[in-house]
Amino acid sequence: MKIHHKAGTPSSKRVNIFLRELGIEIESVEVDLRAGENRSAAFREKAPNGLIPVLELDDGTCICESLAICRYLDATTPNNKALFGRTPLEQAQVEMWQRIVELQGLVPAFQAFRNLSGFYSDRENCIKEWGEESRQRLKQFLPVLDTQLGKHTWLAGEHFSVADITAWVLCGFMQNLELTVDDSLPHLKRWHQQMAQRPSVQ
Amino acid sequence: MKIHHKAGTPSSKRVNIFLRELGIEIESVEVDLRAGENRSAAFREKAPNGLIPVLELDDGTCICESLAICRYLDATTPNNKALFGRTPLEQAQVEMWQRIVELQGLVPAFQAFRNLSGFYSDRENCIKEWGEESRQRLKQFLPVLDTQLGKHTWLAGEHFSVADITAWVLCGFMQNLELTVDDSLPHLKRWHQQMAQRPSVQ
Repeated sequence: MKIHHKAGTPSSKRVNIFLRELGIEIESVEVDLRAGENRSAAFREKAPNGLIPVLELDDGTCICESLAICRYLDATTPNNKALFGRTPLEQAQVEMWQRIVELQGLVPAFQAFRNLSGFYSDRENCIKEWGEESRQRLKQFLPVLDTQLGKHTWLAGEHFSVADITAWVLCGFMQNLELTVDDSLPHLKRWHQQMAQRPSVQ
Repeated sequence: MKIHHKAGTPSSKRVNIFLRELGIEIESVEVDLRAGENRSAAFREKAPNGLIPVLELDDGTCICESLAICRYLDATTPNNKALFGRTPLEQAQVEMWQRIVELQGLVPAFQAFRNLSGFYSDRENCIKEWGEESRQRLKQFLPVLDTQLGKHTWLAGEHFSVADITAWVLCGFMQNLELTVDDSLPHLKRWHQQMAQRPSVQ
């Protein structure tokens, strides 16, 4: 089993933190995103989304999409972490918060960064105005996390989950947009300090 | 148990098709999106994402995000449909395709529609150029689905899953963008005709 990824990218961080929470290590193969290696036909054969990370099983079967990789690793690694929740209700709450953070946090964060910085302007049209709008929407979204963390220890309730990993990666990525977890978001800040103590993120 | 939704919206369609696949019915309460009912403090108390649908359990606990609702209903309704897959590998493949269709299909489709039509211009900035770019990216994505459906009966393999429901909703929504499943996408077309036969989508 090996993982095709690019160290330092948000998606690879998500999977790496998940791996460390489970206490497992997997051989990794670096993909040269700048050179567009992920856009080649050979890579697309492994990952139809054209994105890293990709988990390649020993029989050659490939799984792309970070969350699909995490689910597979969770289901095939004996553990009592319940990173996707235990009961049906807990599982639904983890899925709900993981999706809220992803769709209202990570998606606008990535769109803001790519459109404002022109990081991939060699391969996509960048529209600055949308970048600014996305940054603004992300900023307006952060109080939603703050409110939830004012009521609960972790994002999906009293139990650490994959939703917290996604939110941690979002907070790290925000520095590219000159957004920080500051005193205007006291509960998010408390959670952020608590997250920073976990060995898996260090 | 009841579901707060808005008939005819893509998110409500997803959950409704899922319910019909499971063979269950749930009391539904209509939410007036045009009047902005989903943006009220009372609604936000139920759904922190400010979106329909929301599943409200008998004890008042609420679950928002379509996929979280589907997971909860699947886990609490005895059934042998395996709409999220059976084995860890199947489950990962369902999650992978569900996410690919959502992130590379539905997200650009919604952004194209909202930015081009100005449907919600009373509550958000609309940027036409991003709408056009999103429509273009959606168009470029459709061959990915066609290729996969040239290899397999259903999107995640040989087994009908929630990924097919998401893709069906995408194909229906595309008419708002003057995009159709035409002869240039023969495998997607074959799958689309097959989907149209399912009682759950009629």
